[in-house]
Amino acid sequence: MRSDYCGTLTAKDIDREVTLCGWVDRRRDHGGVIFIDLRDREGIVQVVFDPDTGDHFNLADRVRGEYVLQVTGKVRARDAATVNPNMATGEVEVYGTGLTILNEAETTPFPLDSHASVGEDVRLKFRYLDLRRAEMQKGLKFRSKVTNLVRNYLDDQGFLDIETPILTRATPEGARDYLVPSRTHENKFFALPQSPQLFKQLLMVSGFDRYYQIAKCFRDEDLRADRQPEFTQIDIETSFMDEEGIMSVTEGMIRTIFQTLKEVDLGDFPRMTYADAMQKYGSDKPDLRIPLELVDVKDLMGEVDFKVFSGPAKDPKGRVTALKVPGGNEKLTRKQIDDYTKFVGIYGAKGLAYIKVNDKNDLEEGLQSPIVKFLPTDVRKAILERVEADNGDLIFFGADKATVVSEALGALRCKLGEDLELYTCEWAPLWVVDFPMFEEEDDGSLNSLHHPFTAPSCSPEELEKSPETALSRAYDMVLNGTELGGGSIRIHNQTMQQAVFRALGIGEEEQREKFGFLLDALKYGAPPHGGLAFGLDRLIMLMIGAGSIRDVIAFPKTQSAACVMTDAPGAVDEQQLKDLHIRLRKKEKPASE
Amino acid sequence: MRSDYCGTLTAKDIDREVTLCGWVDRRRDHGGVIFIDLRDREGIVQVVFDPDTGDHFNLADRVRGEYVLQVTGKVRARDAATVNPNMATGEVEVYGTGLTILNEAETTPFPLDSHASVGEDVRLKFRYLDLRRAEMQKGLKFRSKVTNLVRNYLDDQGFLDIETPILTRATPEGARDYLVPSRTHENKFFALPQSPQLFKQLLMVSGFDRYYQIAKCFRDEDLRADRQPEFTQIDIETSFMDEEGIMSVTEGMIRTIFQTLKEVDLGDFPRMTYADAMQKYGSDKPDLRIPLELVDVKDLMGEVDFKVFSGPAKDPKGRVTALKVPGGNEKLTRKQIDDYTKFVGIYGAKGLAYIKVNDKNDLEEGLQSPIVKFLPTDVRKAILERVEADNGDLIFFGADKATVVSEALGALRCKLGEDLELYTCEWAPLWVVDFPMFEEEDDGSLNSLHHPFTAPSCSPEELEKSPETALSRAYDMVLNGTELGGGSIRIHNQTMQQAVFRALGIGEEEQREKFGFLLDALKYGAPPHGGLAFGLDRLIMLMIGAGSIRDVIAFPKTQSAACVMTDAPGAVDEQQLKDLHIRLRKKEKPASE
Repeated sequence: MRSDYCGTLTAKDIDREVTLCGWVDRRRDHGGVIFIDLRDREGIVQVVFDPDTGDHFNLADRVRGEYVLQVTGKVRARDAATVNPNMATGEVEVYGTGLTILNEAETTPFPLDSHASVGEDVRLKFRYLDLRRAEMQKGLKFRSKVTNLVRNYLDDQGFLDIETPILTRATPEGARDYLVPSRTHENKFFALPQSPQLFKQLLMVSGFDRYYQIAKCFRDEDLRADRQPEFTQIDIETSFMDEEGIMSVTEGMIRTIFQTLKEVDLGDFPRMTYADAMQKYGSDKPDLRIPLELVDVKDLMGEVDFKVFSGPAKDPKGRVTALKVPGGNEKLTRKQIDDYTKFVGIYGAKGLAYIKVNDKNDLEEGLQSPIVKFLPTDVRKAILERVEADNGDLIFFGADKATVVSEALGALRCKLGEDLELYTCEWAPLWVVDFPMFEEEDDGSLNSLHHPFTAPSCSPEELEKSPETALSRAYDMVLNGTELGGGSIRIHNQTMQQAVFRALGIGEEEQREKFGFLLDALKYGAPPHGGLAFGLDRLIMLMIGAGSIRDVIAFPKTQSAACVMTDAPGAVDEQQLKDLHIRLRKKEKPASE
Repeated sequence: MRSDYCGTLTAKDIDREVTLCGWVDRRRDHGGVIFIDLRDREGIVQVVFDPDTGDHFNLADRVRGEYVLQVTGKVRARDAATVNPNMATGEVEVYGTGLTILNEAETTPFPLDSHASVGEDVRLKFRYLDLRRAEMQKGLKFRSKVTNLVRNYLDDQGFLDIETPILTRATPEGARDYLVPSRTHENKFFALPQSPQLFKQLLMVSGFDRYYQIAKCFRDEDLRADRQPEFTQIDIETSFMDEEGIMSVTEGMIRTIFQTLKEVDLGDFPRMTYADAMQKYGSDKPDLRIPLELVDVKDLMGEVDFKVFSGPAKDPKGRVTALKVPGGNEKLTRKQIDDYTKFVGIYGAKGLAYIKVNDKNDLEEGLQSPIVKFLPTDVRKAILERVEADNGDLIFFGADKATVVSEALGALRCKLGEDLELYTCEWAPLWVVDFPMFEEEDDGSLNSLHHPFTAPSCSPEELEKSPETALSRAYDMVLNGTELGGGSIRIHNQTMQQAVFRALGIGEEEQREKFGFLLDALKYGAPPHGGLAFGLDRLIMLMIGAGSIRDVIAFPKTQSAACVMTDAPGAVDEQQLKDLHIRLRKKEKPASE
């Protein structure tokens, strides 16, 4: 039905007869001539109909925005005066000689070029219109390119694309499962997978050696801005390869994507231990674009006459740290400092002490701060030396439980980087390694920092002896402060797996019931294996600078997990519920329970 | 951890030092030397440990079947006498100089090389072991190759890979939906998609122009041998392309797959109308490998004194047809004919008349048949002429409602083709076109033969006037009697869509409620569009000659829609049900309803 895409015509096509199909982006009547900006997936070209074309002109006169047209015409150069350098096709236009209206269009509920004027709810209701916008088209086209590149990269490396089930058993990732009642097995439910973790491990036990899948995953959680009930993972697993091998293959994949689609060479990714990351950046996903670091001063504060500092300094679980903002003295107003104090409050910090360094050589009068009076001169001196303070710098302090300090000052560091535009580069990737196996809950129980199938870097005996200090063979890939992906070497023998289950407080019976098939699989010749999963949506978001995950998903859900376009979820009839052996739990009738 | 795959070593590798990882397929002790067949994804190689290797020999002596090993050694030629021509690596062996046991293995619940000796339930329970078999590995590797090829083919043609939601609204494909109770919207349910049909149409309305997705689809139906609750479609949709264009692109895709992976040139696919297919083959997915055709003899039977024939011959909805089996007279025994009579009974046929042609020139004595006595001589003559009977042929007859005759004789034709090995070629693809829009139910109501979004080849007015005879712009791709894929040009304007809904008895209110968003989308500038969906599982089955759909899916469900490996579906706790606002409908307590 067409010879060319609208958006691809250039001066090379001059004098060619073309047939185009597309949407009326704009229609103008100018000096008795009709100009139509015709739009398709590849872009926009100007089509001109003059009155000489008779019926076609009259038809062109009738068309309105978003009509679907088929246009025949000849490509010609635009007058020098009307060349549009902002348009890919701006050197040419099509002199229309034929026009067919393929479909008419009513006035759209919102003008595509001022989508920002309506709420996102309207745009989501008419998603098929919002997706016509160049920005949305670009995002989904980019996503398609990334997935194709990922697949070919992994295929070249011998990875097999293998599908794992969507109707499956509850998985142990810890988030809430979406459940699907079974019709054929009364009172039983499938769960939608939170990840294909156990299936991909079983594929390794089967000997498939290298697996990948661009896999849909599901979590029934309350949604934050960057979450969706269903999201997509680039899921990878391989046998007979250690951490180095897996990091090398997957780093190569991300580097290839950036090289090919952004023409950016990410170089070799640095490695950082979890301990270092927490110490210097207060985060296990540090944004290395920002040249600020936390500097611990706990050892200086034990004896000061200021409980806010000396308390945490004397607490084994406490942390006292400094964050120097070079030139912050001038850059930050009193109001901003107040705002940052509120900001760290979000993360549980009870305040935000600071020192303005006016004259670093005058430890009495040169330091401006509400708290400096509590600090002896030698402590002041030691602080300035340790953070390498210069005149004009501002030093923030965090003092509290280590978890609170790290989180609050880590977040403050990122906020300062953004607010003061401190970024030293566009892309800062790294690997974070040597994670702890477990994190301790307030009640002293342990949780997996990754998941219970992650191998520790110690023996089962050492693990049992001191699980709190055990490190794992996990690795996270971080880019610009966002976790792109995470993975680990997995446990491949039953003894170790059971040791980890025990550390997590999962007893023998629960182990059998929940993970019996995994424990069985481990005893029939499981190979050493490991893998990684990347969040595809987040990767795309980062790469195109999208503000919301909804911009990189064709048909996303709202924050309340609904699709306002199709009106999903919807009501179902009684027969369907009967078939599934369930009934609605009616509201406000606890008596009938 | 390794230098080579076991299965890839050849004479070219002789004298190389290699490191291999894999499973012990077999271990033999022969003349004081230990032979290990080491297996990985790519195949098996023989590793030899002799007593000179000391500790390694002793370790090799300890290994048992399915142990996971890392082996170092030198590739050497086998003695001429021990070359194994049945093994890809049969010319060489590895002289082991190092051995590490990476994991031990208990005796497997069934020996992999005699999997047939255990029930499929055992193999499904230990699926990760069953998947170690070469045949299963081959199937899933083949599947991965097909999907990669499909993706690159479509990508080259400008198709964008776009994901559509899994948590969605009930779709109108007609099968039973899997439902997912919503936690955030009380008493509402998501449905898992039976296909991405409406989403891909909306992507066309959005202007994405060319879409594809290898998409998971779900149907909660009672399972037949070739069905699974979740299955995979190669889903395609395109704008501004007519039937010819779409058939050409997709035919090219299938041809490329066969060319690349089977080295088979399928050539240009013939076209056949639905009417012709039903008439000649009694099926809308005829197996053209079989050189048998149905020949209608209805016009000859109106006046015969045999109600079994004359009844259907006089019924406008009746059909009387003949199926000639060349040489069938000798090839088919009385017992076989009886079995075929039972066989057509499955399809509702009340009997299976036949004539054995002993001497075609002797219309009195030369025809052997229980029914020939009811047929006048001129009718006998006309039949023989019409089916071009020769001496030794056997002619079967079907007479009943046309639907029954077509189904029964169509099935008989395929059964004869299989039993008598009549296939004239290995692969027989074709397109079936010009389908009716609707099929009539017994109560006179109409159902879509494809789905309600299929465009008719007539105007809305003609459709309303005589929907029973309206043809659609649908096309099915058929290979060896199996429907590989089906598609159509879709309706792209609201008037036509509403005319079709009306013909289906879907009133204005139901239209709005179920398809409001589609009807809206059609009025804001929907382009002409169409597409196609291939059943990936079935395509793979056909290509590798798998006997069951379960052989081409890594983790399939049983016939009762369960996974016996993970024990899914499973029980859930009361809190989960509360969160989802549902409760179990307890059995045998109708009083408490």
